[in-house]
Amino acid sequence: MKAAGKGAPLRVGIAGLGTVGGGTLRALADNAEAIGLRCGRPVRAVAVSARDRHKERGLDLSACRWHDDPLALAADPEVEVVVELIGGSDGPAKALVEAALEAGKPVVTANKALLAHHGTALARLAEARDAGLYYEAAVAGGIPVIGLLRDGLAGNRVERVAGILNGTCNYILTTMRESGREFADVLAEAQALGYAEADPGFDIDGVDAAHKLAILTALAFGCTLDFEAVRVEGIRQISAVDIAFAEELGLRIKLLGIAARNGGGGGPGGGDGGGEATVSQRVAPVMVPLGSPLAAVEGVFNAVLAEGDFVGKIMAEGAGAGERPTASAVVADLAAIARGDRRAVFGVPAAALRRLAAAPVEDQAGAWYLRLMVIDQPGVIAEVAAALRDEEISVEALLQRGRDPGELVPVVITTHETSEGRMRRAVARIAALEACLEAPRLIRIESE
Amino acid sequence: MKAAGKGAPLRVGIAGLGTVGGGTLRALADNAEAIGLRCGRPVRAVAVSARDRHKERGLDLSACRWHDDPLALAADPEVEVVVELIGGSDGPAKALVEAALEAGKPVVTANKALLAHHGTALARLAEARDAGLYYEAAVAGGIPVIGLLRDGLAGNRVERVAGILNGTCNYILTTMRESGREFADVLAEAQALGYAEADPGFDIDGVDAAHKLAILTALAFGCTLDFEAVRVEGIRQISAVDIAFAEELGLRIKLLGIAARNGGGGGPGGGDGGGEATVSQRVAPVMVPLGSPLAAVEGVFNAVLAEGDFVGKIMAEGAGAGERPTASAVVADLAAIARGDRRAVFGVPAAALRRLAAAPVEDQAGAWYLRLMVIDQPGVIAEVAAALRDEEISVEALLQRGRDPGELVPVVITTHETSEGRMRRAVARIAALEACLEAPRLIRIESE
Repeated sequence: MKAAGKGAPLRVGIAGLGTVGGGTLRALADNAEAIGLRCGRPVRAVAVSARDRHKERGLDLSACRWHDDPLALAADPEVEVVVELIGGSDGPAKALVEAALEAGKPVVTANKALLAHHGTALARLAEARDAGLYYEAAVAGGIPVIGLLRDGLAGNRVERVAGILNGTCNYILTTMRESGREFADVLAEAQALGYAEADPGFDIDGVDAAHKLAILTALAFGCTLDFEAVRVEGIRQISAVDIAFAEELGLRIKLLGIAARNGGGGGPGGGDGGGEATVSQRVAPVMVPLGSPLAAVEGVFNAVLAEGDFVGKIMAEGAGAGERPTASAVVADLAAIARGDRRAVFGVPAAALRRLAAAPVEDQAGAWYLRLMVIDQPGVIAEVAAALRDEEISVEALLQRGRDPGELVPVVITTHETSEGRMRRAVARIAALEACLEAPRLIRIESE
Repeated sequence: MKAAGKGAPLRVGIAGLGTVGGGTLRALADNAEAIGLRCGRPVRAVAVSARDRHKERGLDLSACRWHDDPLALAADPEVEVVVELIGGSDGPAKALVEAALEAGKPVVTANKALLAHHGTALARLAEARDAGLYYEAAVAGGIPVIGLLRDGLAGNRVERVAGILNGTCNYILTTMRESGREFADVLAEAQALGYAEADPGFDIDGVDAAHKLAILTALAFGCTLDFEAVRVEGIRQISAVDIAFAEELGLRIKLLGIAARNGGGGGPGGGDGGGEATVSQRVAPVMVPLGSPLAAVEGVFNAVLAEGDFVGKIMAEGAGAGERPTASAVVADLAAIARGDRRAVFGVPAAALRRLAAAPVEDQAGAWYLRLMVIDQPGVIAEVAAALRDEEISVEALLQRGRDPGELVPVVITTHETSEGRMRRAVARIAALEACLEAPRLIRIESE
């Protein structure tokens, strides 16, 4: 890179002019000089596509051709790189990405749903056409976690990835804790503030985080994407009382996406013997110790913690969504393309991505928080303790706050590590007790 | 990258077989298969150099040629890439790096002192020989912060970088706070535990952090390195009483390296008009709010927080030193070379690195913590308040804990934002008061 900004411009076509598309155009314009110096050539938007040509977006599109049809943008010979910001796991977004890759054009996308569902096939297509598929913006917004895992940890065997991957959920949980209010109330406020969608299920039921986790899993472990194998639980069931008990126990509730590899050898997919590797992928509200780095990530922020055999634990934290942070990630990918970087889509060639079996739920080890609402009467605790004992589950703490004979009171139990199968069997037995009048709340405790 | 691991191996020569050199050899061996898949070719150590050939290091060097002279390693035609792990700003390390670059061989180094003192000249040499100079391991150990700034934030104008860049200092400050003990006591313990050197000045006087900050500054702002312009203050003067007052004020003392750009336009060095940009570079103990991400980084961990105009605030945290984390960073650089990445040494071509003037100390704005040890007698506070008033400094809080007429008592004042010049003039006047029996302690308060 001897010459500064003297190469031919990289000509970019952007499909989708929502917030991220607008932010990308602004970043390319505002920081054009710096980007040109960093890449050794200018990066220039030359074409755009969106549904409504006449909508006022506050963008200067004078240098861009307009395409009503995103496929025409992909076919435009002026366009060297396609940025897909349409969204959705299928339909026009998928057709556009496929068309661009088929034409041998690199693609930059922020579309986690598309990758979660079709990532392996798209990676194969990208490699077959020698085109490149970049998706820094698809996970954790502005945090360059894809680059961190793929490039920064290139010398590591990654064993575990854990992330706060949905800012809406983290905002709701943070606000519930700070205000002591209940979920429905805080959700309504988040919707009014624009932090949650009118139809919030995609976020609060954990689907969005699961899409992102499936991508991180493939990248971290060098395996094919398996979105269907992600166990997903959202935050609708979290109540103020559990948040308060967590604080009392020195814990904090976070919706985490966690992927862990178990067994297998030293290859990126556990390839060199040592038993068949499995992978567990979970999105669920969990409790983490107050002193852990993830506990300190509050509000709409995202964070990803990775554990590698050489680097140890490493965490990156920042804005997980929004026009400008997500645009920052899109431009990072464009800069990589402009510099001529060559990267396998999920870190290793698509043909080398291994299919890793899902770890059996039954065997997954963990400590647990269990909250019961029971009638305060003699003998109840003994019955609960017996159910745990019969599954060889060791109690770490038991909290029974306040006495109110004959009334419903919360009883909280934390356990030492046990298998999920044992825990769920014990809880089923406890739930059937006559004195147990509400469904027990079971939340996993992560050591971080 | 169609073919997996089928390219010719990248042949690496490693000079220096201390902990990081050993860790690098182990990482290349342990994760050879994964690294090969990720890079599209194997990365192989083929030659080593160290002072004592016969020392037992627990390393398998059977596949490596031995060179007593590092310059012979650089000249070895089998060696394509030189890893410099000798250390020191001059002498053999500098000679080796120069010889390798002169020969057109890319260099990977963990040597922050070398880069802080000679980075600009080495970047020019690397570019003149089209060789590449990589230094992920030189700053913040395993945290891939160089890649994060250079690649992940490529679309941003970076305005400020703040980091916990020295694990020894962070460990000492954390332990002082947790135990309430004094600096000298905790330092002695850290030395016994191997967390601090027998000659600790390099760490605790802030020199090591200053080396790293000078590198981050050049990379973040696209400017020439200017180590001499870093204002450096270590942690020897921090006492338990200041740590305790900080906690009471909702603050925590951290040794931070902070680089900020003031003024100038939108280019990487502030190049497109808008007044002449200046840069301030400081290493000093500062107080940060307890809720800020940097406050939560404890013990030997490092962290770097960057602020970009699109990404906003982003922080990465992890192990800042040690055999395996630092080796992880060295291998990340080797992987980049193996894949054929092309990167300007400090993000932009050396010829485009601008010389940015140091911001005048006098004008640097900030809020302050001031602790006085004064004789508890009527009128002292009034004299102190008058000194501040005369410099138009606004008091945010004043704490006088305990009354002990005629004895020495601590008085703590926090101020609203003012210029450093005003603050230092007021403190000079206060220090001269008859009732002020010890030198005042002045610590900057950062908003994060």
